[in-house]
Amino acid sequence: MSDIKHPEIDLDPQDWPAFRALAHRMLDHALDHVQGAKERAIWQPVPADVKTALKAGVPHAPQGIDKVCDDFLEQVLPYSTGNTHPRFWGWVHGTGTAGGVIAEMLAACMNSNLGGRDHGAIYVEQQVVNWCKSLFGFPTSASGLLVSGTSMATVIALAAARFKVLEYPVRSTGLQNGTKRLVGYTSVEGHSCISRAFDLLGFGTDALRKIPVDQNYQMDMRALSAAIAHDRAAGLTPFMVVGAAATVNTAAVDPMHEIAELCEKEKLWFHVDGAFGAVAALGDKHTELYKGLDRADSLAFDFHKWMHVPYDAGCVLIRDAEAHRGAFNSRPEYLAEAPRGLAGGEQWFCDYGPELSRGFRALKVWFTLKEHGIEGITRKMEDNCAQARQLAQWVGEQPALELMAPVSLNIVCFRYRLDDAEKSDTLNREIVMQLQEEGIAAPSTTVLQGRAAIRVNITNHRSRLADFELLIQEVLARGEASNA
Amino acid sequence: MSDIKHPEIDLDPQDWPAFRALAHRMLDHALDHVQGAKERAIWQPVPADVKTALKAGVPHAPQGIDKVCDDFLEQVLPYSTGNTHPRFWGWVHGTGTAGGVIAEMLAACMNSNLGGRDHGAIYVEQQVVNWCKSLFGFPTSASGLLVSGTSMATVIALAAARFKVLEYPVRSTGLQNGTKRLVGYTSVEGHSCISRAFDLLGFGTDALRKIPVDQNYQMDMRALSAAIAHDRAAGLTPFMVVGAAATVNTAAVDPMHEIAELCEKEKLWFHVDGAFGAVAALGDKHTELYKGLDRADSLAFDFHKWMHVPYDAGCVLIRDAEAHRGAFNSRPEYLAEAPRGLAGGEQWFCDYGPELSRGFRALKVWFTLKEHGIEGITRKMEDNCAQARQLAQWVGEQPALELMAPVSLNIVCFRYRLDDAEKSDTLNREIVMQLQEEGIAAPSTTVLQGRAAIRVNITNHRSRLADFELLIQEVLARGEASNA
Repeated sequence: MSDIKHPEIDLDPQDWPAFRALAHRMLDHALDHVQGAKERAIWQPVPADVKTALKAGVPHAPQGIDKVCDDFLEQVLPYSTGNTHPRFWGWVHGTGTAGGVIAEMLAACMNSNLGGRDHGAIYVEQQVVNWCKSLFGFPTSASGLLVSGTSMATVIALAAARFKVLEYPVRSTGLQNGTKRLVGYTSVEGHSCISRAFDLLGFGTDALRKIPVDQNYQMDMRALSAAIAHDRAAGLTPFMVVGAAATVNTAAVDPMHEIAELCEKEKLWFHVDGAFGAVAALGDKHTELYKGLDRADSLAFDFHKWMHVPYDAGCVLIRDAEAHRGAFNSRPEYLAEAPRGLAGGEQWFCDYGPELSRGFRALKVWFTLKEHGIEGITRKMEDNCAQARQLAQWVGEQPALELMAPVSLNIVCFRYRLDDAEKSDTLNREIVMQLQEEGIAAPSTTVLQGRAAIRVNITNHRSRLADFELLIQEVLARGEASNA
Repeated sequence: MSDIKHPEIDLDPQDWPAFRALAHRMLDHALDHVQGAKERAIWQPVPADVKTALKAGVPHAPQGIDKVCDDFLEQVLPYSTGNTHPRFWGWVHGTGTAGGVIAEMLAACMNSNLGGRDHGAIYVEQQVVNWCKSLFGFPTSASGLLVSGTSMATVIALAAARFKVLEYPVRSTGLQNGTKRLVGYTSVEGHSCISRAFDLLGFGTDALRKIPVDQNYQMDMRALSAAIAHDRAAGLTPFMVVGAAATVNTAAVDPMHEIAELCEKEKLWFHVDGAFGAVAALGDKHTELYKGLDRADSLAFDFHKWMHVPYDAGCVLIRDAEAHRGAFNSRPEYLAEAPRGLAGGEQWFCDYGPELSRGFRALKVWFTLKEHGIEGITRKMEDNCAQARQLAQWVGEQPALELMAPVSLNIVCFRYRLDDAEKSDTLNREIVMQLQEEGIAAPSTTVLQGRAAIRVNITNHRSRLADFELLIQEVLARGEASNA
């Protein structure tokens, strides 16, 4: 009767007890990795033989789960990025948590698709979004979506802003008819994801005006006003301003309140890039710095940075839920909602962003925020800011070291001085490479006013003051050795 | 000396043995959930009291990991989507695997960021991409990226195609100058993600021409040629054709070979939407159907569908790596690569897509493909296709049932006949809701030629023939009851 000739099959373990025992052993490896974060070298290069092993061709035949786990322990686990280590301060990386390991295994067992429909995971994401609206001063009528990170959050916010100004026809006619030419604004210190979103959405990066900053690396508001006036006079259509909270080079926070005022006056969409810095608004020590953030039309930020949710997890909040949904909703017949059953549910998240299938990243956020509470997360955030001030003070006490930018939050840029500035550039880059290669510490580098800086970004819940003392010692020793 | 007044803190467990014991208990819950997939009702609505609990406000104070786990077991785990169940055939969902649970906990313990830099996870993603290039007939010089799913893969492929035709200036000037108006083509059965990508990228959905299909729901090639000629005559710039492999309504595969020929002649970018159907090209039973797929300029497909990797995980492959990288690369000073150390590494994935921070979704793909092998995955794929043929045969044997479209792969659309077509629409939608509500089975619905259909999409490694027998019985019983 059936044309199925072979025994029916599935991809479940054939020996469940053995599988279970293996899974428990692997869980211990995972927890050992987290618990032992402080004890390992922060980083080591992937050895040549491991690189070769990771070039093996397509696995046509099944290898079985035991072999895969062995390969993982040998080829992958030892060569991590290092951001779980207390002395990782490169770029802007979060640390992750042990609770995140539990959350991710649970999300995987459910295998939920949060594009839409009516099931528990949807309510978890809604709850997380509602928490965020409340935390950042957005009204209950606002909307939001969990995303892979601030880059995607920015794309979504800009698409909503585009929809708001051009209305429905933009979705059908696009930007190709050239009737209105939209321009937006951020500072020269604005993050590259803003420029990349302008590119992706078809505005082009030229349509993003880069406004100069003052000595504190904050946006120059007079220059912003002048740029808007200039563009209006040229027949262009200014539509949005992006304020940084905070910038990635030096953690400068743009004047939120003044941007909000200007945007209200000029009827522009006010977007805030809060990738890592939005978290600092949740404490009580930076209230003045963040005044006006709650007037943003949209906010993009990450959970995987200063909130330590495992990668990847970010969020976009949008004040005007109609503009948000208007920019993305569109569902074909096979996705029609039903009055009852699994195809019910009031909110289908696929109506709020470019993704249709969406994983359950909300669970790890839910776990992390509940486990540690906003208080636990902000307390460590304040601790990191205090560590940054302490590090800056230690830098200031050393004549051989030079602080390269004011410390407003958690980023300290400094360098070892040499009389020859170019030699100093080379030396400081060399110091950073050595610290990484020797597994001691992982700051990164940047360029400030044309000069290389050692950049210490402190979004690390495992860092202790002693870790920064070691950093100072190691930098000094290497600088002195090069001078000798 | 320090302004840090409180004891230094971190977010690690204060009692590691207790945390470990809890993690092992939760792992057993996770594995019980997978192992017991067949025994549960496929779906149940979230009860009102659970919905209320999931509206609790911001967790300001830490709740601790025990409380979070308890909440999860009570409020979240029982209300899953149901796609781990053998009788889930709604939309296009993958089943997930037990091995995926292990992979996700391991990825979380490493907490890698795959935007770039030189660490083990990068080599894992490169290996997975290389496997895919090999499997789908792309040259070793091609590029690829793991993404959240086919929607993002499509955005990336279209951005690369846009870059290829408009070259570098498109990134700075965008589409706003209206010099060239790009148009692309797909069939009326093309997936909504294509239209959504046209919207997002600023082309506008009007720029995507919807070509009619024949009685097999395959793109009408003469209509495609005519549309291209018509657009060229109107001064527009045709730049790409999207072929479906396969369509989401009926799993029709567009004539790949003919589209490839036409694209070569017309110098158009040939993109293939292989969201779930690309996997069928990996077996030896559909060679003729997929002939020409290996000539695609880009391919978008999902691992989380017919390859059963846990959500979310998809892939884009792009033949012209220069166009791919050209469309996305741009890195500021703080992300500059270094000759040695952690900032080394030849390939930074942030140069190939819109995301900068990127999670380690490659690990669950690596685990799944190695554990089961391409053979294990394609064997179950063929099994699913045979099940679809069997189901179609059973439908054909029942006078009360009507097959609504030809079965080419794994999707069976049918309905219970009533003399009154509108009453039949209502009945069939009602049957689907009842089957879901009673936890028996979860097909979904669609509309074909204006009429509602019960749509059975078989991308489920747990489905057995007996599951489809039960479906037929249940549909017949409900249809007869309504007729009585």
